[in-house]
Amino acid sequence: VNVFIASIEGELATLTPEESWHCARVLRHKAGDAVKLIDGKGGFYDAALTLVSEKKCQAAVVSGPVLQTKRKYYLHLAIAPTKQIDRIEWMVEKAVEIGIDEISFIQCKNSERLVVKHERMVKIVESAVKQSLQACIPVVNELTAFKQFVSQARTGQSFIAHCGKMEKMNIGSVVFGNLSSLVLVGPEGDFTKEEINEALRHNFKAIHLGENRLRTETAGLYVCMAAALSGK
Amino acid sequence: VNVFIASIEGELATLTPEESWHCARVLRHKAGDAVKLIDGKGGFYDAALTLVSEKKCQAAVVSGPVLQTKRKYYLHLAIAPTKQIDRIEWMVEKAVEIGIDEISFIQCKNSERLVVKHERMVKIVESAVKQSLQACIPVVNELTAFKQFVSQARTGQSFIAHCGKMEKMNIGSVVFGNLSSLVLVGPEGDFTKEEINEALRHNFKAIHLGENRLRTETAGLYVCMAAALSGK
Repeated sequence: VNVFIASIEGELATLTPEESWHCARVLRHKAGDAVKLIDGKGGFYDAALTLVSEKKCQAAVVSGPVLQTKRKYYLHLAIAPTKQIDRIEWMVEKAVEIGIDEISFIQCKNSERLVVKHERMVKIVESAVKQSLQACIPVVNELTAFKQFVSQARTGQSFIAHCGKMEKMNIGSVVFGNLSSLVLVGPEGDFTKEEINEALRHNFKAIHLGENRLRTETAGLYVCMAAALSGK
Repeated sequence: VNVFIASIEGELATLTPEESWHCARVLRHKAGDAVKLIDGKGGFYDAALTLVSEKKCQAAVVSGPVLQTKRKYYLHLAIAPTKQIDRIEWMVEKAVEIGIDEISFIQCKNSERLVVKHERMVKIVESAVKQSLQACIPVVNELTAFKQFVSQARTGQSFIAHCGKMEKMNIGSVVFGNLSSLVLVGPEGDFTKEEINEALRHNFKAIHLGENRLRTETAGLYVCMAAALSGK
């Protein structure tokens, strides 16, 4: 049974425009077909299609919501996009599979890429959510300048992962459970000293990701996996 | 300074044929140029090229070996290759970055791919070793049938990660430090019941990788990261 993202009001489910196109055009569904729906906020539904067209598909909810088990942590990863965009794209896909709540893109001094197609990232996120049988859609934020990003108001604990020489905690000793955590991961060429100091001034704590030199996208995924493994 | 893989005998270093071609043809080095060498067994060297040709490059060792810090665990990952080979290729790249000692490919009942180009995998491994500034080259084994693989003699602890319903330990509670560990990761569609039973009969312990359904390549990388984070 195929899974679609829909907005649900009572027993009426309306698929998003992209999902409608996919449902009608690519998968060639007909009214009456059984489908599974997710609302993006943690609910799974069984439904039957009532209206199928390339612009708009609707369904009648048969049962649900069944709620996705909540993760015990909130993880917000802020990462500098890589020069080769496919590298950050696969990281986004994998991060969603492992579990993430919010992804931000930050523009740093050493960034070699200054554009991120927000719409495409959202699509990758949604597709990974469905593929990994989840019902919550992580938030994807637009590219923001580093200085502006670190000075934004926030709650919970905040970390900056960098390769500079200073006393740093191993991410393996960070406790993620029952907390909201924001982790910054820098570009190829790392954060500059000025950026690190700026983050520390805004109460980010410095962490490291082990002995090896990791690529940006590997570092981002390592953060997600460390959070998932924390306390296990 | 560029890094090359070489076999070292006393003060004479001979680059591998592929590295020689890369050194002479792609990077257009000349005799006298300073290079860094790794011997694939954990040693870093400084050297100066003495002979440069597309078929054979040699260098005189100036200093070394400086030994790479040893990891505190030995990790052998045995994984079913994915239908789309690029997915397993990036996993191999990332696994090397994070740290791995041996990679095997296993042919399972549900495998959709029955061929792995060994030479190409070795190239990916070597390139990732150099990129992440390491000096040890992990072993890459040829594709082996599941049944044959699990019955091979081995030392240390052995695990099979699968999605079947039975009592399983979370990989986060496995202790990897000071031990040799072998972990099996199955294909799209998972191991069959028969394969799981076969592994259990050969003293593999069942583990799980958390609540979410992971793709094969994500699962493989999760194992590597769990080992790296174990005891941190």
